Amino acid sequence: MMSENKFVTVNEVGPRDGLQNQPVLVSTEGKLKLIRALVDAGVKSIEASAFVSPKAVPQMADAQDIFAGLPVDEDVAYTALIPNEKGYERAVAAGVKSLAVVLSATEAMNQNNIRMSLSEARSVCRSVVRRVADEGLESRAYIAVAFECPYEGLVAPEKVEELTEEMFASGASEVIIADTIGAASPTAVFEMFERLKQSFPIEKLSAHFHDTRAMALANTCAALHAGLRKFDSSIGGLGGCPFAPGASGNLATEDLVLMLHQCGYQTGIDVTGLRRAVSLAEELVEHSVGGRMLPWLISQDARAAKKEATSA
Amino acid sequence: MMSENKFVTVNEVGPRDGLQNQPVLVSTEGKLKLIRALVDAGVKSIEASAFVSPKAVPQMADAQDIFAGLPVDEDVAYTALIPNEKGYERAVAAGVKSLAVVLSATEAMNQNNIRMSLSEARSVCRSVVRRVADEGLESRAYIAVAFECPYEGLVAPEKVEELTEEMFASGASEVIIADTIGAASPTAVFEMFERLKQSFPIEKLSAHFHDTRAMALANTCAALHAGLRKFDSSIGGLGGCPFAPGASGNLATEDLVLMLHQCGYQTGIDVTGLRRAVSLAEELVEHSVGGRMLPWLISQDARAAKKEATSA
Repeated sequence: MMSENKFVTVNEVGPRDGLQNQPVLVSTEGKLKLIRALVDAGVKSIEASAFVSPKAVPQMADAQDIFAGLPVDEDVAYTALIPNEKGYERAVAAGVKSLAVVLSATEAMNQNNIRMSLSEARSVCRSVVRRVADEGLESRAYIAVAFECPYEGLVAPEKVEELTEEMFASGASEVIIADTIGAASPTAVFEMFERLKQSFPIEKLSAHFHDTRAMALANTCAALHAGLRKFDSSIGGLGGCPFAPGASGNLATEDLVLMLHQCGYQTGIDVTGLRRAVSLAEELVEHSVGGRMLPWLISQDARAAKKEATSA
Repeated sequence: MMSENKFVTVNEVGPRDGLQNQPVLVSTEGKLKLIRALVDAGVKSIEASAFVSPKAVPQMADAQDIFAGLPVDEDVAYTALIPNEKGYERAVAAGVKSLAVVLSATEAMNQNNIRMSLSEARSVCRSVVRRVADEGLESRAYIAVAFECPYEGLVAPEKVEELTEEMFASGASEVIIADTIGAASPTAVFEMFERLKQSFPIEKLSAHFHDTRAMALANTCAALHAGLRKFDSSIGGLGGCPFAPGASGNLATEDLVLMLHQCGYQTGIDVTGLRRAVSLAEELVEHSVGGRMLPWLISQDARAAKKEATSA
């Protein structure tokens, strides 16, 4: 917590990970509006879409149009998720400069999720990451279910280290350790990054937390304490696998940014701007969203409005 | 996080702090049922009631009956909150062995809350704590608004250290640093306990967090990291000052215990037993309660029930 580097990079995954499984099909224009709101709030790293099968994921069918319509800003890095070589080719043809791949850490998760063995999935990821590197583009390699797998239980940190090593050896620009089902504890997170930073530069590592058990912020603190300075989050907590209505999935960007600022970190992101993006996201998905701090944020707004009214 | 001592003491404040401001008047029998459920779950430290003005706080009017009816268990410590000498005398007459006093750290909070100056409040607390020590009883001295005051803003850690020193010098058994309005950040919490442990034995310090900004668990981690091993919490998150419906007030005992267990700490508390206490609390206060992990816990129950049904 006492480290020198006080700047934290927040990678927004709402437009892809957050929207992907929403039952309401959001228009391309709506998605671009959301991305614009995020850029206006100061977000500099955004997972904008995915070049996946439009049949399997209709919400991402407009990936090409999204990348054609993105706000032009040299300081903002836009990433597209790709599942395989075919996705890679479509993404590169659409002008994508940063590509994300997902490698689940266990045999059963790969079998259940993408009907591949772990060995096949590793091979696909290695090959795609190598092509990205050869083209001089950026790649973000996710190690999914890095703490616990819904089928196999606890995942050995050695396994995560091995896969991280493999992704860096293949040329990955960044490796993101993902607690896909929100089962990690602060202790496990601290130990994971303490371990990984022995072998890899910490500035090339990132974390992706889910708030299923309400520990995403505590896990963030544990990772910060180990020296990590890059985190994924999703505006309004959009996405993830909520087990029950009202339960958060992804760590909400507004929760993350508020805590980081209160802890004395800088993000370059404006919380008021994030509030606008949350409201917009609600309109687009047609249901209420918002991180765990939202009731407090709303009360602050109400208080400010009341003050203004009485002083007017 | 890597400290040797893996046992954490959880002090349950639901029956007092949690119920105190509930609009539904809970019967003495109901309160004792809740306390019994907590004891059954393995809780060993409980703030059971308060000897305050029955006119000001009707919910606590039955403090004497509560202490007369408590489950007899030598391993369980029951505390009563007392505001002044009069409360002290009533509590001691009722056989109370552990007494809690609250000292707010700022002038404005004391003026607004108890219509005393900070200097008067200090004097009352010193005198009560001394009487408790002279009688050979235990005292728990709270330093309220220890991080931020709703009237004066940020509170200087030096001020908290000074008041802590004063309470220990008067004979306090334990000093509890309370983030009364839920405004502390993990960084502030870590720095506070790193500071205090230079001057006071950490095993005599405790923390009381509110989840207003969703940081109670993150703050708990920061305090654990500084070596703290005692925490207050309230079953179902009962109590506190919620700013909006659905917003948590006190850190929920079930959230705290779940995270501690996942982090490898022992509490002696059984989570299933806590679930029963949460349900009971809901019946008593006639509205839904429950920490932030509750949706996940419920989903686990549903999954277990389904498994049982299909295997039967």
